[in-house]
Amino acid sequence: DQPNLSAGKYRHVIRGSRKAFAVTKSKYLKKEWCKTEQLKQVVREKGCRKRKIINRFCYGQCNSFFIPKSGHRDMQIGAFRSCSFCKPKVTSWITVTLLCPGQTPRIKRKRIQRIKQCSCMAQTLN
Amino acid sequence: DQPNLSAGKYRHVIRGSRKAFAVTKSKYLKKEWCKTEQLKQVVREKGCRKRKIINRFCYGQCNSFFIPKSGHRDMQIGAFRSCSFCKPKVTSWITVTLLCPGQTPRIKRKRIQRIKQCSCMAQTLN
Repeated sequence: DQPNLSAGKYRHVIRGSRKAFAVTKSKYLKKEWCKTEQLKQVVREKGCRKRKIINRFCYGQCNSFFIPKSGHRDMQIGAFRSCSFCKPKVTSWITVTLLCPGQTPRIKRKRIQRIKQCSCMAQTLN
Repeated sequence: DQPNLSAGKYRHVIRGSRKAFAVTKSKYLKKEWCKTEQLKQVVREKGCRKRKIINRFCYGQCNSFFIPKSGHRDMQIGAFRSCSFCKPKVTSWITVTLLCPGQTPRIKRKRIQRIKQCSCMAQTLN
C-alpha cells in the first residue's frame, strides 16, 4: 500500500529527480575542497647518489551525488550521477640530475612527473 | 638546481609518500558525509494511472586523495590513490500496482528499485 504522498509527513519531500538535482547542486555542493600540499620525495638510481625533490600531493572532499530518475527500473542506468576526485590538475615534467661516482657516465638524468596543482575533477563512471 | 630540502622553508614539508598517506588518513579524512534524502517519484505506464512513490537520493562529499610514490616515473601507476562516491549502499525492490482502466489486464505490476541508504563507497579507478 502506498501512503498519501500529498499530505502529512510527505508534504515536504522533494518532488521529482530534476528538483532533487537542482537542490543538490545549489544548496550543498559548494563546499567541496581539494588541497595541494608539499611532499619530499627521494629520487634513486642504482649506483647513484639519491636526491630529494619537492613534489606535491592532493587530498580533499569533492562532491558526488546519485539521484534516481522517475520511471527507470534499473537505477544504474536511470540516474543523474556524478562523482568528483581530488587529483592532480596541473603537472609538469622535471629532469633530475644524479651523480653516480665510479660509473660511466658519471651523471644520470631522470625525468619525473611533478604535481603542480590539485583540483576536484569529474570522474568517469561506467 | 635543487634547493636544500633539509633547511629553511622546506623543513616542515612532509617526508615521503607513506607519511603523506598517514597524515591524509588520520587528520583530514574523517569529515566525509553522505546524506540520504527522500524524493517523490512518479511511476508511469501507458494507459495506466500514474502513481507516486517515495524513493531516496544521495549527495555528499566523500574523501579522495592522490599521493605520488617515490621513484615512479608515471604518476598514474605509481601513486596511492583513492576516491569515494556518495551512492546507494542498500537498495530494495518494490512492486507498484497500477490501475489501467479499459485495458486487459486492468492491473499492471511494475518492479522498481528503491534506495534505502546512501554511503561514501570506494570507487574503482583504472
